[in-house]
Amino acid sequence: MVFESANDMFIVDAGLMFPDDDMLGIDFIIPDYSYVCEKKDKLRGIIITHGHEDHTGALPFLLKQVGTRCPVYGTSLTLGLIKEKLNEYGIKDVQLKRVHAREMVDFGDFRVEFIKVTHSIAGGLGLGIMTPVGRVIHTGDFKFDLSPVDGEGIDFYKFAQYGEHGVLLMLSDSTNAEHEGFTLSERKVRVAFEGIFSKADGRIIIATFASNIHRIQQAIDVAVEFGKKVILCGRSIVSNANIATDLGYLKVPANTLYRIEQINTLNPRKVVIITTGSQGEPMSVLTRIACDTHKYIKIEQGDTVVVSAKVIPGNEKAVGRTIDRLFKRGANVVYEKVSDIHVSGHGSTEELKLMLNIVRPKYFVPIHGEYRHLVSHARLAEGVAIQKENIFIMQNGDVLGIDTGFVGVTNHVQAGRIFIDGKNSSDINNNAILKERKRLARGGFITVMVSINKETGGIIQGPEILYKGFIFDETSQDVINEAKTIIVDIINNGENRTYKDITQVELKVQSALKKFLRNKLDKRPLILPIIVEK
Amino acid sequence: MVFESANDMFIVDAGLMFPDDDMLGIDFIIPDYSYVCEKKDKLRGIIITHGHEDHTGALPFLLKQVGTRCPVYGTSLTLGLIKEKLNEYGIKDVQLKRVHAREMVDFGDFRVEFIKVTHSIAGGLGLGIMTPVGRVIHTGDFKFDLSPVDGEGIDFYKFAQYGEHGVLLMLSDSTNAEHEGFTLSERKVRVAFEGIFSKADGRIIIATFASNIHRIQQAIDVAVEFGKKVILCGRSIVSNANIATDLGYLKVPANTLYRIEQINTLNPRKVVIITTGSQGEPMSVLTRIACDTHKYIKIEQGDTVVVSAKVIPGNEKAVGRTIDRLFKRGANVVYEKVSDIHVSGHGSTEELKLMLNIVRPKYFVPIHGEYRHLVSHARLAEGVAIQKENIFIMQNGDVLGIDTGFVGVTNHVQAGRIFIDGKNSSDINNNAILKERKRLARGGFITVMVSINKETGGIIQGPEILYKGFIFDETSQDVINEAKTIIVDIINNGENRTYKDITQVELKVQSALKKFLRNKLDKRPLILPIIVEK
Repeated sequence: MVFESANDMFIVDAGLMFPDDDMLGIDFIIPDYSYVCEKKDKLRGIIITHGHEDHTGALPFLLKQVGTRCPVYGTSLTLGLIKEKLNEYGIKDVQLKRVHAREMVDFGDFRVEFIKVTHSIAGGLGLGIMTPVGRVIHTGDFKFDLSPVDGEGIDFYKFAQYGEHGVLLMLSDSTNAEHEGFTLSERKVRVAFEGIFSKADGRIIIATFASNIHRIQQAIDVAVEFGKKVILCGRSIVSNANIATDLGYLKVPANTLYRIEQINTLNPRKVVIITTGSQGEPMSVLTRIACDTHKYIKIEQGDTVVVSAKVIPGNEKAVGRTIDRLFKRGANVVYEKVSDIHVSGHGSTEELKLMLNIVRPKYFVPIHGEYRHLVSHARLAEGVAIQKENIFIMQNGDVLGIDTGFVGVTNHVQAGRIFIDGKNSSDINNNAILKERKRLARGGFITVMVSINKETGGIIQGPEILYKGFIFDETSQDVINEAKTIIVDIINNGENRTYKDITQVELKVQSALKKFLRNKLDKRPLILPIIVEK
Repeated sequence: MVFESANDMFIVDAGLMFPDDDMLGIDFIIPDYSYVCEKKDKLRGIIITHGHEDHTGALPFLLKQVGTRCPVYGTSLTLGLIKEKLNEYGIKDVQLKRVHAREMVDFGDFRVEFIKVTHSIAGGLGLGIMTPVGRVIHTGDFKFDLSPVDGEGIDFYKFAQYGEHGVLLMLSDSTNAEHEGFTLSERKVRVAFEGIFSKADGRIIIATFASNIHRIQQAIDVAVEFGKKVILCGRSIVSNANIATDLGYLKVPANTLYRIEQINTLNPRKVVIITTGSQGEPMSVLTRIACDTHKYIKIEQGDTVVVSAKVIPGNEKAVGRTIDRLFKRGANVVYEKVSDIHVSGHGSTEELKLMLNIVRPKYFVPIHGEYRHLVSHARLAEGVAIQKENIFIMQNGDVLGIDTGFVGVTNHVQAGRIFIDGKNSSDINNNAILKERKRLARGGFITVMVSINKETGGIIQGPEILYKGFIFDETSQDVINEAKTIIVDIINNGENRTYKDITQVELKVQSALKKFLRNKLDKRPLILPIIVEK
């Protein structure tokens, strides 16, 4: 999101998206920053509201495009996580500017005040933005956690103060706009952990998001309470825990942490492993444990596995498979469906209405979440007396123009999704390649190789048929022989010998094979004929 | 599932599974029937408990293997749906034997009594099985719908009668074993429909499963109540409605149904369209409406779309996208998350416990559902006084041996999944092809073509590089040229000319290119070198 005046501009958050199942081979998706790049002379800074991937993940790409002279603002944990990420990408000399809640920073025409919010990662911020035309509130990702683990609650007073002085526009987190009620406090998870720990006979393995420092803190606290030792397992969780410990966000008593290599020196009843893989990610520790391919951890009868995370839409089957495999190996698995071992980091309907009531903006834009969540949030806003015509449901690229006495969607600028695939990137328009991949995924491919005499057009060598990802069964050799006959017929056919262009023959072979395989096997592989003239 | 004695055997249900996302290009999955085929002389019949795909879908394949002389038993709706399916596969002369609830059929050593159950499709049956060693109850898919739409409730008396006389073993539906409480009656959906119909300003489009005749009945009933006309849209829903109407399961008043071609002759406020696509299936009517590619239906402001179905795990993203698209086109979308427009067809925990209490079996096998659901159901059974050692969580192929005074898992026979892909099938072991498809899907492929002189080993033609599904950006031509240089170097390299076997050179080219592309672009396409000697 970009805030822009005639002279100045700043960016709020630079997140990535994970690809849908049909975006084959795409590692992740970042925003198209063309608009920002064109105006980078006006760019005064980038604010990162908190350290989650969907708010930080595109930062290396953004900085490559706008230059590392552009300062990046965030709390110490946010910057700690960003620093790690920038290192991975080999990006140096970035101006990381640590800010505190209630601090103000000027971005030319704009002055931004940082406001403490509670979320599923520490160090989250909302923004109070003084613009030339009025005050704007950007909530960031938030929930109203009334008993936060670190004791630092959301800054009611600041939001209320803005409300009292008058807010022109509020932008608010819509992720949980479909969830009725009030999201439970993170502290509730401790009660669930205590229940599990008190019943567990063997080792306890807890899988959660590596960034959820409060969750890790609670698992450690309960382990200490029950006299157990903790092993952090997995690169990202170890790295995040180190960063959080260094910055004082995570507090681990002495003699609590052990290394994974030491696991067999410990009494199983004294072991708590905190790890990743709550989404069934193929290479994660939990998946490797479930598939019995982890170097140090083998499930034994009596082990308890706690999947302490929400299943992100799209991951349901992978998570289900992991849980099934753990059960089959003899673990007792505790997961969201059967226990309260996870709470969301986003406010539910009553919290969203509470925020609207506290801030009382004149205009409202629901942000964050899928389109249907924005629609739900807009309806909630109507229900707390925001006028329907003052609510704007916006899509990427839409520009909300604000002037004295006028607010409305005035323009649409270039925006969209850039697919990152290995070291290359490509824009969404390049989906011809994704279509090819879909065809390859569904039916594999077939290459036909024939050498023909340049003078006579007769076959010298071949046809040879090579294929990958194409299923053949016992009747296949017959089908291949039949296909070869078809190819030979086309090439030896007198009429074709008059073709000047060899690609005409290739096309003819391709279309004949396509038809043949469709009728014979009901298959549509990608067909690549290669005819060589000698 | 197979029931077998020394002399006789019968099968219960013959369903298909839909593939996971990573089973690329697989249309669906059926059971491996090897075991049954080996013993087909003993096979006395196939019972289909109800007409859902996961109970009927493999029947054409099973009948092809065991022969059409094997009779198939089911209620009239079940057989009506099966007949349609067998026609599609061109399978004729099958002995379809219509049965009624409380009827008995002998299968050699076994006598089976059919017991009426309630489920999300009419004509559902449970089974009471008299075996040489004792009575067995197989519940089929069921819920306790206490106010069923067709007035025909589950046969409490029969289940209780078996319980009274003593049941050795019960096999019971575990699908909803994780759902607390009591599943709502199908009739509750009518109340939700009435609420939606009373508020709708324009057309109403209801998407549901084509097989849910009661749901379709209720949509039609409410349409009639509100003086609206009904259009059934989509091949499967029209076909199923015709079958159900012919058999008396669906009752439509005269002058209610219109054809989709007549849509524009009707007042939009009078139109209810009942269709498919509740799972976001790419070619379904609802998806085409959402993408604005349907021939007759364009979303207009004021249209209401009701997604009256559960989202099947794995379809969450597709369904979410469809809902978002419909909102963006201006429809008001009503879906499960925000309204009670769907109830499950499977019993929740209290119903499963109720069934256990009524039947009071000595031994218990939870069936239907993922492994974790079986585990949950086993725990429920323990809670209602089934002894833990009398509960067996079984996997495909496991044999539960029952003899006088003994029950236990005694054997494991060949079982597994057969992947159906076009007109071919392949067993799970053939997953080398799926691995190839996965590689193709992630990175596409590259073919390198070179002709070399048979005598000298020197290059005559090429290298030519062809690729599909491989992303290149502006720097690509350089990369391709560099790759060509690498290939030329390998072939012209004196050492290689001594290779007797051309495949050695091909392997060398492949591995050099693989390394080059991984380092240069972080990509792993499938590489297929073709070197032709002349």
